[in-house]
Amino acid sequence: MFNRKCIVEYDGTDFCGWQAQKEVRTVQMEIENALETMYKDRLFAIGSGRTDAGVHALNQVFNFRTDKHIPLSGFVMGINTLLPKDIAVKHAEDVHEDFHSQKSAVSKTYMYRLLVRWTPSALDRNRVWWLKKKPDTALIRELLRAVEGEHDFACFCAAEGMKENTVRTIYHTKVYEDGDYISLEINGSGFLHMMIRIITGTVVRGAFRGQKPSDMLEIIRGKDRRKAGMTAPACGLYLKEVFY
Amino acid sequence: MFNRKCIVEYDGTDFCGWQAQKEVRTVQMEIENALETMYKDRLFAIGSGRTDAGVHALNQVFNFRTDKHIPLSGFVMGINTLLPKDIAVKHAEDVHEDFHSQKSAVSKTYMYRLLVRWTPSALDRNRVWWLKKKPDTALIRELLRAVEGEHDFACFCAAEGMKENTVRTIYHTKVYEDGDYISLEINGSGFLHMMIRIITGTVVRGAFRGQKPSDMLEIIRGKDRRKAGMTAPACGLYLKEVFY
Repeated sequence: MFNRKCIVEYDGTDFCGWQAQKEVRTVQMEIENALETMYKDRLFAIGSGRTDAGVHALNQVFNFRTDKHIPLSGFVMGINTLLPKDIAVKHAEDVHEDFHSQKSAVSKTYMYRLLVRWTPSALDRNRVWWLKKKPDTALIRELLRAVEGEHDFACFCAAEGMKENTVRTIYHTKVYEDGDYISLEINGSGFLHMMIRIITGTVVRGAFRGQKPSDMLEIIRGKDRRKAGMTAPACGLYLKEVFY
Repeated sequence: MFNRKCIVEYDGTDFCGWQAQKEVRTVQMEIENALETMYKDRLFAIGSGRTDAGVHALNQVFNFRTDKHIPLSGFVMGINTLLPKDIAVKHAEDVHEDFHSQKSAVSKTYMYRLLVRWTPSALDRNRVWWLKKKPDTALIRELLRAVEGEHDFACFCAAEGMKENTVRTIYHTKVYEDGDYISLEINGSGFLHMMIRIITGTVVRGAFRGQKPSDMLEIIRGKDRRKAGMTAPACGLYLKEVFY
């Protein structure tokens, strides 16, 4: 039995997210279709986690198990020939049979990109959250840092994705400017449904309102989704790295 | 009579270039359609020059003349509402009646972006020329610098675009790396059809072959398109700035 781990980039614009669903285009389904062509067998691509419709991945991880061996060198080029252009496998390696893209993950980093400009962007229309007014980057950094640590993040979870246990740990956050762009990075043990997008919406709103870190902690303590900010658009979100 | 100058960004992927043509989608036609809705009149959008199918613009310039006055503040937001998402007007101002986007231009800067990576990119598939092997950036810089100055650039002109006078001046070139990206910038008085893309193809080939600046000058002196390199893909090219 071979267990192959792959790193994949995708442009989420034209996908209904990662997870295979009938009758809509998903990343997992396209990958499983390409694998079927290569292996003449329907294999299951285990993702490190789902991404929602419109969300991008710079380095999503998936693995699949099979008895058939295709050499790594030809595999990467081969699968990229079979995949549509908005999915690209960047790396593949054979790993221990116990490796599981989701269960073995110890943390993940997501990046959220804002573009601050008076007018919309044509080239980045599906790549950023466009803001007309500039929020205070230093304040975003401070507010985001306040959510670091282990918390019950029920307030940052989309209602339809509510789980029994909403405690998660955010290990590290980072905020940086590059020209008209502001990027937020959040590394954590795992995330609730839409959690990064709701956190982004909340800290951006907080920056516009001149809120303090204590306001973030109060929102968290309230455990009420309605007290948090809007869900930032999917197109600004990137799954940047999965750590094992 | 009002003469309005506009700066526009576009994603060239789904356009057959700038210039209006029947039965295909072009940037100029989309802009003239939006202007017609605003002004209830078919106005002519004079571009600083054509861009080919697939070529992007960060700051293309166009102007149009009309007797009707629409205030600038509402104009930019209004036209962006009417334009498709892959075109965005970034700025507008009213200028002297003699201003002509093409004839008044004194120089233009184009940027060409290369992505060096073993595997293709999903997110940048329509934004760069993907190279599997890394060319020597310092050598690209040196070879590109050799084409600066006034030359007969017949060797860098697509046959179908050949004009009687193929003498042009390249004022300045710049090459820089940013992670896996290499960007080339060329500022000049004006360019022949596909000139930047053929120059890019020639200096990249030259870098792989370890050529010298004198080889570039010999290609120029030969005035033979067949001696130059391939035409680099349209999707890596950006009209970056037009100077007046």
